[in-house]
Amino acid sequence: MRQGIFISLEGGEGAGKSTQLRRLSDRLSQTGIKNICTREPGGTAGAEEIRNLLVRGDAARWTPKTEALLMYAARQEHVEEVIKPALARGQWVLCDRFADSSMAYQGIGHGLGIDRIAALNQWVLEGFQPDMTLILDLPVSVGLSRTEGHAVGENRFEGMDVAFHERMRQGFLSIARANPERCTVIDATTSAEVVAENIWNAVVAKTAKANPELES
Amino acid sequence: MRQGIFISLEGGEGAGKSTQLRRLSDRLSQTGIKNICTREPGGTAGAEEIRNLLVRGDAARWTPKTEALLMYAARQEHVEEVIKPALARGQWVLCDRFADSSMAYQGIGHGLGIDRIAALNQWVLEGFQPDMTLILDLPVSVGLSRTEGHAVGENRFEGMDVAFHERMRQGFLSIARANPERCTVIDATTSAEVVAENIWNAVVAKTAKANPELES
Repeated sequence: MRQGIFISLEGGEGAGKSTQLRRLSDRLSQTGIKNICTREPGGTAGAEEIRNLLVRGDAARWTPKTEALLMYAARQEHVEEVIKPALARGQWVLCDRFADSSMAYQGIGHGLGIDRIAALNQWVLEGFQPDMTLILDLPVSVGLSRTEGHAVGENRFEGMDVAFHERMRQGFLSIARANPERCTVIDATTSAEVVAENIWNAVVAKTAKANPELES
Repeated sequence: MRQGIFISLEGGEGAGKSTQLRRLSDRLSQTGIKNICTREPGGTAGAEEIRNLLVRGDAARWTPKTEALLMYAARQEHVEEVIKPALARGQWVLCDRFADSSMAYQGIGHGLGIDRIAALNQWVLEGFQPDMTLILDLPVSVGLSRTEGHAVGENRFEGMDVAFHERMRQGFLSIARANPERCTVIDATTSAEVVAENIWNAVVAKTAKANPELES
């Protein structure tokens, strides 16, 4: 059986990742491509427990290093228990945030440094990475104004200051520039319909050769 | 003010670490040396939350890599929030388990490897280590038979098999051989009184030069 394709969606708060993940999943399903939707931090029972430590409470509750270690602890569980097994079954995996978020949040936003996060990433994932990463980009002020509907209490990262979110946005854009084969930046300021169409076209362009059933 | 001294107590389950920690603390206090007792995983509110993920539940609940990451997440909090500030105040810090336990449990017991744990240790601690480590050594069968009084539910590590605990014991002994300046192996098969006296003598021998108030 063909190995599934692993797509991560990245971007700042309020970029519409979960909405777009659902739309992409539905359209893939309609095309006959089996897929699962998951998210980070989380995705397994244990990783969701770790998530609860990360997304709740005071913004300054953990040192940046601890935050990175907890993120990668949850990621390790998620990769081994959910992502790799699904890919091995031939399913596509659509994931709301993955390792680029650690780079953007802890490496760049908190200033731990790109090299330090890259070293931790290699320690944990040993080279495993998404086949394709969609980076939903929009101005910080627009994104934060959209986050009001998020799960109650899960606002620890939203509580960090605007300068943090701005560093993070620039971080995602620099990750995209450094990894042009893997990353596609999507303008997330337009309507959800237009964003969804742009995502679909990017996915088709990237994967159509291996998946002739896909078309724009 | 003189910087405090950091002493870790290591050893398998049931070696009597917490009893000996208390005895050492009391004797230091009687000598006029201010000290704090702490433990790993744990020691801060956040680290204790991480501890709850680690010490409860099924023995196979986390992959060894995740276990190591969670241990080091808790350790990072503990070092920055408790250990370093106490040492800076001139207090001695007595810690029930520290990084050698990660080496013995995850590196050797679970087989992640010495080099991998050493790399993670360097990523997190950047060279910070105890001034002195007391390794309480006893046969696995004796240790496990003594663990019945431990906190209810905190038995995840005790649930691992005897071969795991035996690898861990040999791991601690090899750590001691590799770090003779820092580590002292204490025979923990004798009475608590004798163990306490041997610990006291080792501490005095190690630190008397800088602490003339100490005597055997």
